[in-house]
Amino acid sequence: MRVLGIDPGIGRMGYGLVRSQGNRLRTEDYGCVETRPGPTGDRLVRIYEKMQELLQNLNPDVVAVEQLFFYRNVTTAFHVGQARGVVLLAARQAETAVAEYTPMQVKQAVTGYGSAEKGQVQRMVAMLLGLPAPPRPDDAADALAVAICHLHTAPTMALVRGRNGDDRFPAGENRRSES
Amino acid sequence: MRVLGIDPGIGRMGYGLVRSQGNRLRTEDYGCVETRPGPTGDRLVRIYEKMQELLQNLNPDVVAVEQLFFYRNVTTAFHVGQARGVVLLAARQAETAVAEYTPMQVKQAVTGYGSAEKGQVQRMVAMLLGLPAPPRPDDAADALAVAICHLHTAPTMALVRGRNGDDRFPAGENRRSES
Repeated sequence: MRVLGIDPGIGRMGYGLVRSQGNRLRTEDYGCVETRPGPTGDRLVRIYEKMQELLQNLNPDVVAVEQLFFYRNVTTAFHVGQARGVVLLAARQAETAVAEYTPMQVKQAVTGYGSAEKGQVQRMVAMLLGLPAPPRPDDAADALAVAICHLHTAPTMALVRGRNGDDRFPAGENRRSES
Repeated sequence: MRVLGIDPGIGRMGYGLVRSQGNRLRTEDYGCVETRPGPTGDRLVRIYEKMQELLQNLNPDVVAVEQLFFYRNVTTAFHVGQARGVVLLAARQAETAVAEYTPMQVKQAVTGYGSAEKGQVQRMVAMLLGLPAPPRPDDAADALAVAICHLHTAPTMALVRGRNGDDRFPAGENRRSES
């Protein structure tokens, strides 16, 4: 099982590929792509193309993303939402399943404690992956943590994916044309 | 000048093409695409493909989108952000310029009054476009309004686009690999 963890953002997107090998976990690639300040469209194209490259080169079975409900403010939520939109789009187009986990689920799965501190999570990520030190930058460590979370909790994935649906809106298309 | 106005959302996306003909404005196509409840990735693919279709078929010079800074809550901001991300991505990939306007700018440009009510805006949209009645659904009317806003305020577009950049994050790519 190969899981690509993603920590989306408009300025920085962390990523990390974790694979399970027997009962050991290993990473094959992790890092962080930063986008140049400029028009949002350009930054989104960069994120989208990086996602396409990661999906093609790393060939994950699942993309795991953190599901944040609480942001410092709506502007942050809005910016992260834009980046996350193109991440989910690229995953869906590559026909790769997406699993979403809350920060508490990630902490719980990685450290056994849902309120663990960032440093603890990072040290556990290093230990579980057999790395000599916590991975840098933080965005990459966060991406690896959500990938590990998926591998530790995969049996509940169907349940988690079922919750991604949004039933608030009706279906169908309503369209008019004039010329 | 042909302007495609977009009112993005994960459940409903309004759109409307407005062209200037001498000093008159006309619409060629407007409507609203609704996405089926289900995984967010599927809904984003639908929005993305609809955007590609609109860009190809309507061949706009500019895509005009509302820029909302204040949402009822972060969850709404996050969902709208995801939809908006794929809208901006599709526009950028089609090499179509994007202009963003605040709701107050739209109201001001359409009715001459920045705090106009929704009904007033919709009646003015109908009048300016020579439609017999306010366009339905509301999402389509909102999309037409932002397109009209662009046509009424295009000279300031360069200024507006310059504000789309986000200078909070550094440039460059920071990447590590392990195997």
